[in-house]
Amino acid sequence: MYTIEFEPVGRRRKCPKGISLLDCARRLNVDIVSICGGMSTCKRCKVQIVSGLVSPPTPEDKAAFTKDELKQNFRLACTTFPRGDVKILVPPESLSAPQRTQVEGLDLKVEPEPPVCGLQVQLSPPSLDAPVSDEQNLWSALKNKYEVPAGRMDITVQQDLSSRLRNQKWKACVALRDKEIVALGASRTRWLGLAADIGTTKIAVYILDMDSGETLASRGLMNPQISYGEDLVSRIYFASKSGENAEKLQRLLVDALNQTVASLCKEIKADPSRIVEAVVVANTAIHHFFLRLPVHQLGVAPYVPAVRSALDIKARDIGLHIAPGGYVHLLPNVAAYVGADHVAMILATGMDQTDGAILGIDIGTNTEICLNRRGKMTSVSCASGPAFEGAHIQHGMRAAAGAIEHVRLSGERVEIQTIGGGPSVGICGSGLLDVIAQMLQNKVIDATGKMNAHPLVRSRDGQKEFVLVDRPEDGSITVSQKDVRELQLAKAAIRLGIETLLDDAGIVEKDIDKVVIAGAFGTFIDVESAVTIGMLPPLPLERFEQVGNAAGTGARLALISKSRRQAADRIASRDGYIELASIPDFNLKFARASSMTWSLAE
Amino acid sequence: MYTIEFEPVGRRRKCPKGISLLDCARRLNVDIVSICGGMSTCKRCKVQIVSGLVSPPTPEDKAAFTKDELKQNFRLACTTFPRGDVKILVPPESLSAPQRTQVEGLDLKVEPEPPVCGLQVQLSPPSLDAPVSDEQNLWSALKNKYEVPAGRMDITVQQDLSSRLRNQKWKACVALRDKEIVALGASRTRWLGLAADIGTTKIAVYILDMDSGETLASRGLMNPQISYGEDLVSRIYFASKSGENAEKLQRLLVDALNQTVASLCKEIKADPSRIVEAVVVANTAIHHFFLRLPVHQLGVAPYVPAVRSALDIKARDIGLHIAPGGYVHLLPNVAAYVGADHVAMILATGMDQTDGAILGIDIGTNTEICLNRRGKMTSVSCASGPAFEGAHIQHGMRAAAGAIEHVRLSGERVEIQTIGGGPSVGICGSGLLDVIAQMLQNKVIDATGKMNAHPLVRSRDGQKEFVLVDRPEDGSITVSQKDVRELQLAKAAIRLGIETLLDDAGIVEKDIDKVVIAGAFGTFIDVESAVTIGMLPPLPLERFEQVGNAAGTGARLALISKSRRQAADRIASRDGYIELASIPDFNLKFARASSMTWSLAE
Repeated sequence: MYTIEFEPVGRRRKCPKGISLLDCARRLNVDIVSICGGMSTCKRCKVQIVSGLVSPPTPEDKAAFTKDELKQNFRLACTTFPRGDVKILVPPESLSAPQRTQVEGLDLKVEPEPPVCGLQVQLSPPSLDAPVSDEQNLWSALKNKYEVPAGRMDITVQQDLSSRLRNQKWKACVALRDKEIVALGASRTRWLGLAADIGTTKIAVYILDMDSGETLASRGLMNPQISYGEDLVSRIYFASKSGENAEKLQRLLVDALNQTVASLCKEIKADPSRIVEAVVVANTAIHHFFLRLPVHQLGVAPYVPAVRSALDIKARDIGLHIAPGGYVHLLPNVAAYVGADHVAMILATGMDQTDGAILGIDIGTNTEICLNRRGKMTSVSCASGPAFEGAHIQHGMRAAAGAIEHVRLSGERVEIQTIGGGPSVGICGSGLLDVIAQMLQNKVIDATGKMNAHPLVRSRDGQKEFVLVDRPEDGSITVSQKDVRELQLAKAAIRLGIETLLDDAGIVEKDIDKVVIAGAFGTFIDVESAVTIGMLPPLPLERFEQVGNAAGTGARLALISKSRRQAADRIASRDGYIELASIPDFNLKFARASSMTWSLAE
Repeated sequence: MYTIEFEPVGRRRKCPKGISLLDCARRLNVDIVSICGGMSTCKRCKVQIVSGLVSPPTPEDKAAFTKDELKQNFRLACTTFPRGDVKILVPPESLSAPQRTQVEGLDLKVEPEPPVCGLQVQLSPPSLDAPVSDEQNLWSALKNKYEVPAGRMDITVQQDLSSRLRNQKWKACVALRDKEIVALGASRTRWLGLAADIGTTKIAVYILDMDSGETLASRGLMNPQISYGEDLVSRIYFASKSGENAEKLQRLLVDALNQTVASLCKEIKADPSRIVEAVVVANTAIHHFFLRLPVHQLGVAPYVPAVRSALDIKARDIGLHIAPGGYVHLLPNVAAYVGADHVAMILATGMDQTDGAILGIDIGTNTEICLNRRGKMTSVSCASGPAFEGAHIQHGMRAAAGAIEHVRLSGERVEIQTIGGGPSVGICGSGLLDVIAQMLQNKVIDATGKMNAHPLVRSRDGQKEFVLVDRPEDGSITVSQKDVRELQLAKAAIRLGIETLLDDAGIVEKDIDKVVIAGAFGTFIDVESAVTIGMLPPLPLERFEQVGNAAGTGARLALISKSRRQAADRIASRDGYIELASIPDFNLKFARASSMTWSLAE
C-alpha cells in the first residue's frame, strides 16, 4: 500500500500497489476529469507529481506534454502508476468538481473615487506651422478639456502613442493615475480594475469597472503554493533556502493570477490590457512571496516584515499581465503575522469607525483578530493551524464536494450534510466543528476533550474514535481522539487571542457589542457550535455577524476609492499589535484556553 | 571584382575574387586583429556579414561561434570568401586601430548638486518590543540623521533590503533620488553616474563620481546602428517597417552601452550596479530609437517628435545594466530634427546666458545651429549629409588611422597629414574641407565649384579628378568633381541654416560676436578652410571657438547637477525652431548658398 495525497483538495489515503493515479483518485473521491474513462485518449487527466516516485513517462505522456512539462513532472493520471508514497497536484482544469472557495462578501457601499480615471480626448493634428510633439498635444487636450496639468506618461504608453493617435483619428481615452498616464485606449474605453485576496489556502479574484465600481466577474481558486507547504512557516522555510525557491513561489501566484485574469476577461469579453490598476491583499508572508521580498526575518524572532507601508508597483515589474503601464497597489501590513488582508477586513466591515467594543475575526490557517474599543484598535495573530482546512485530521479534507459540512447528533443517531449533497468523502472544518460541539453536548467528550464510552465510540489501533459514517467495506469516516486534540489546539489559539485582547482593553467578553466573523471558513461555520466548544465567547447569537470574504471586499473598496485607500493606511498605522508569544504565562493560558467551555473571565 | 565595404570605418573598394575577407581588409587598410596571420587558429578576426553572399561557414567558424552567432552571420574574416558585393561590420574588439572619436569637451565648471545623493545610515536592530519593519527602520534612520521624510523605495531595493541590512550589521549607504531610494549599498559606497552622448555616427560614454562630479573614465565608440543606414532617414525607414526592426535598433544601442559600461567599470574597478543614474543625450531620432518610441511621424510632414519633454525612465525598462532601481534621464528635445544633444550643447557652452549675438554649431551628418541674440534663441537643423564622415566620397573614409586629415597645396606640390602619421588610406571630412579650400585658393576650382585645368587635375571615365596621392599600382587617392559637389551640398545646407537665423533675427554676419563650433568633426576642422569655402561666415578667426564634444559635456552637467537639468528644460522651452524646408524660396536660396564664397548679406 502506498499513501497517495491529492492537492489542492487535501485528500490523502493508502491505496493498493498496481493501480493508476486515476484509479487512486477515484478511490479517494477526487474528481479528476476523464472523458475517455482512462483509455489515455482524451488527455484531460493531467496532473503534476510533487514528490515521490512514479512509473516513467509513456508514449501517451510524451504526446500530451512538452519536454518542459515532462521535466516539471506533468503526467496523465491514467498512464501513471505510483512506485511509492506520492503527492499529486491536480491543476484546476483537471478537476471536475471545484473546491468551494469564497468570493462573495459585503456589498460595496461607497461612491467610486477611482484612483485611475478614464478621460476622453480629441486632439488637433499637428501641422508644419505647429509641429507640436504628440505627447505635448495630448497634454494640451487634457488641459483644455479637464484642466489636468502636464505630468508623466508611462514609457509603454509613449511607445504606442504616435501610431495610436494617428490610427484613431486623434481621438483617444486616457487612463490617468495621479499625474501619470498609465494607459491609452480607443475612444470610449471602459477601464477595468483587478482586486485579489490571496490567502494561505485560497485566492479570490475580482474584475471591476473602474468607473462604476461594479464587480463584473469573480472567481475563487486554490493557492497553488499549497504543494510547497500547508502552512506559512514551511513555505517561509522553503523560500528562504534559495533565490530560485523564492522565485518559484512568486511565479506560482503570478501565473495563477494571470490565468484567472485571462479567463475572467474572456468571460466578460474584455482584453486584459484594459485592466489599468490592481489591488492585492494578503497576509504579510504571502504579500512578501508575491513581491519576492525576503521572508527569512518573518520566521525568526523578533519577526519583522521587510515592508509595512502600502506599495505601488508597476505590474510589469512582477510579471502581472494587465496594462503594461498599470500599477499594483498593495495595502499596508501591520506586523509579521497581521497583514494587509486583515487591514482590508477592517476596512470592509467598517469596524474601525464604530463606537462600543467590536471584535473582528478572520478565521483561517492563521487567524487574525482585532478589537476596536472606543477607537483603540489592537490586533493579534493566532497560529490556529490547518485543522480547519482538514489537514492533520484523520478523515479531514477541504471544503470540496463530498465533504461533511454539518452534523447533528441525537442519541445514537447521526445526521450529516455533505457539500453537493452526494456521498460523504471526508470531513471539512465546519463539519469537524459541528461534530465536536455535538459530541460535547451529548457528553461523548468531556470539557477536557477526553472521549467517553458511547455506542458510537469504538477503539482502533488502541485509539478511541467516534464513528460518523460506518461503511466497513468502503471506508468509514470517524473522528479520533487525536482529531479532537487537533481542533482543541486550533480553538485554544483563537480563544487565547480573544482573551488577550479583552485583557489588554480591560474588559470582559460580555462587554463585546458585536463579533464580526470574516473569511471563507467563518462563512460556513455554525456559530453556535463554535460558542459551544468555547472557541467564540458565549454571547447572544444576534451579536455575531458572518460577513463572507471581507478581505476581498476591502481589496475591491481600495481598488475603486482613493479615500478608502487612505482609510486603509490610517487603519494600519492606528492598529496596535500584541505578539501573542510574548504575553506572560503564555503556556499556562494556552492550556486553560483549550478547555471545552468558555469560563467567564475573572 | 566585388565591392567590399567595411563598417563602421566606412572603407569601400573593389577587390578581386578569390581572396578572403581578411585579405580584402588588408587591401583597404582596415586594421583587423589577426594574431595568427590568417591561419584560422587565433579566432580573433571576427566580423559580421551585414549584406551580400559569402562562402558557407567552415569547421573553424563553427568552432569559433555559437549557433546563434552563426545565424547572425558572424564569421572569421580569414576563412570567409566573398561571393559577390558584401558589406561587413567589424566589431570593436576585432579592430586594432580604433576610430577616432571625440569624448573630450569643456571642463565641468559647476558645483555638483547630484540628483541622487549617497546617505550613510546606521540602524538599530529590531526587537520583540519594537518589531519595526526593515523599511520603516531605514526611513527612521534617514529621518533622524538627515531629516529626510519617508518616501518610496524601488521594488528591487526592497527585495534586497532585509538580507543586506543583516549582512552589513545594520549599516548601509542609501542612494536617494528625490523621495525614492533607488539603490542600497555597503557602508561608504561611492555612487556613480553614467553620461552618454549618442550621435548618428559616434557615441561618447562617461562614468562620473556622483558626489564629486569627477569624470572617472570615458570612451568613444561607433554607433553600431550604422550598418542599418548611414543617415537618420534610412534608419527611420528601417525602424518603421516592423516592430522587430525598431527593437533591433534599440538593442544595438543598449548592448553597446552595456558593453562599454561594463568595460569602463572594470577599468575603474567598480561594479556597474554602483551606477545609480544615467543621462542620455541624442538627436531626436536616436532618442526615439533608444526608447523604442515610434519614429514614422519623424520622417513625414509635419515632422513631429513623439515626445519632447525630458523623461525619467527606469533603467531596467530599456534593459540598461546599471543599478536595477536606477533611472535614465533624457534631456528634452526641441523638434523632430533638433534634439536633446543640441540642448546639451547649449547647456555646456552656456550660450543661452550670454549677451550680444552668439552662434552655436554642432556639425555632423545632421548639423544643428542655434543663434542667441539678446536672449532670443532660435535653432535650425540642416541635413548636411554624411560627406563629412567620408560617405559618398570616392576615396572618403571616417576619421580613422590613415585618413588624410589636413592638406596644403602650393602650386603643384601637395602636402598631406594623415591620422596616426602612417601611409594614406583615404580622406576624412576635415581633409576634404582642407583640400577643397586649397583647390579654391589655388584656382583648381572656381566659385561655382567647377574644376579647371591644372597639372594635378586629370580625367578618368569622363570625369575630372584632382590627384592628391598618385600611386598608380597601389591605388591613388583623388578628389573628383562629384566629390566637390557633395561637399558643396553639405556646406550649402549649413550656410543656408546660418543665413536663415541671421535673417530671422534681422542681423548680418558681422553682427555675430562669437561662433562656437561643437562636435567631433568641428574639433578637427581647420576653421580657415571652412571660412574659405563659404561654409562659415567670414569673421575674424578669434571670434571662433572649437569646444569639442559639448553635447557630452552637457550630458555630464545634467548628470551631476539638478539645477543644470532645470536649465536644460528652460533652454528647450525657450528655443524657437525654424523648419528650414518651410522658408520661402528655399531652392533658390539653397543654390545661392552652394557658391564657394560667402557673399555679404544684402
